[in-house]
Amino acid sequence: MKLNKKGLLIVISGPSGVGKGTVRKALFEMQGHDLVYSVSMTTRKPRVGEVDGKDYYFVSRDEFQNRIEEGKFLEYAEFVGNYYGTPLDKVQEQMSKGHEVVLEIEVEGALQVRQKVPDAVFIFIVPPTKRALYDRLKRRGTESEDVIRSRMEKADREFLLANRYDYIVVNDEVNNAADRIMAIIRAEHAKTARSIAGYLEMLESEDAKNE
Amino acid sequence: MKLNKKGLLIVISGPSGVGKGTVRKALFEMQGHDLVYSVSMTTRKPRVGEVDGKDYYFVSRDEFQNRIEEGKFLEYAEFVGNYYGTPLDKVQEQMSKGHEVVLEIEVEGALQVRQKVPDAVFIFIVPPTKRALYDRLKRRGTESEDVIRSRMEKADREFLLANRYDYIVVNDEVNNAADRIMAIIRAEHAKTARSIAGYLEMLESEDAKNE
Repeated sequence: MKLNKKGLLIVISGPSGVGKGTVRKALFEMQGHDLVYSVSMTTRKPRVGEVDGKDYYFVSRDEFQNRIEEGKFLEYAEFVGNYYGTPLDKVQEQMSKGHEVVLEIEVEGALQVRQKVPDAVFIFIVPPTKRALYDRLKRRGTESEDVIRSRMEKADREFLLANRYDYIVVNDEVNNAADRIMAIIRAEHAKTARSIAGYLEMLESEDAKNE
Repeated sequence: MKLNKKGLLIVISGPSGVGKGTVRKALFEMQGHDLVYSVSMTTRKPRVGEVDGKDYYFVSRDEFQNRIEEGKFLEYAEFVGNYYGTPLDKVQEQMSKGHEVVLEIEVEGALQVRQKVPDAVFIFIVPPTKRALYDRLKRRGTESEDVIRSRMEKADREFLLANRYDYIVVNDEVNNAADRIMAIIRAEHAKTARSIAGYLEMLESEDAKNE
């Protein structure tokens, strides 16, 4: 029995290359959830196999900047020369339907969401070791050594921001990490601050319902 | 990978008759945990099938009162004419071994633990309806109608104390309730406040370990 009927806003973040995308996909493949993924908008070019409207909304730099001026992002960030942002209208639409909305975003963007939606759930995905992060970036093979080095330096600064998040999840193995996130979502729904109103309401209305 | 190496103190509480004992037993039957049950001490008489040292330590009223005076309880309460308490030495012993210690105690005692161990995890077990609670107490068949009525009145007051707990778990079905508690334990270990020290330590020491 779920006492909290309101969908949660789940923010999955962490240094670039930590495997946020694979963890998020594994999470969505699990059974018995009501998660909706908030597709980000970006000006970066699609990687092989990425689909517009599914992995990202791919837009031009001009279009992205217009949307910034119109206040149409919950958060956005420029990262290695490209913009990434979360379209506000999509998130609002899904939450109003009672879905749990999952954002998978960069650290800079996550901190913006923290200010706008303080009761969102902030999860920081970390690599088991720095070496594992370097190897992942290298294996991806899409960036030059220079870009990889700049991402590693950025990761070093981001590790220190872990304390701005509610939870730290180590991506030692993708399914373990997804399991932990699912446990966090279930626990968050049971939190007294989220569930007490629903519980007291249920106690008051039960006679009418049960007799 | 578990970043928080310290065992948690898990306090399972809720109105009498809500099924704390059955939920706790279902929890311990689940796989892959490192939970240790803290056996309470009581002056009430054993029910059929209850074993001394396993379900409770059954002691005399005199012995219990001596232990109160000696400060040997983490919490204790008098309830429907009987004392119930948590022996402090046992809890300390198990926690020092790194186990997660589970207390299953009355509401009055839980509030005492909250003051002494603020970072313990407080879970309030509630019935799906008041009627369900009444039916459970009745079915147990161990108390007179007067005692049941006094327990129901006490439950009404205790429902209002739910806001002193970290989590509210509805005992709609015992395995669901145990599942939710397990999710809470996993989520609590991932909480930044508990895991960040271990994480930063790991990052610092990794080169020595991995190369």
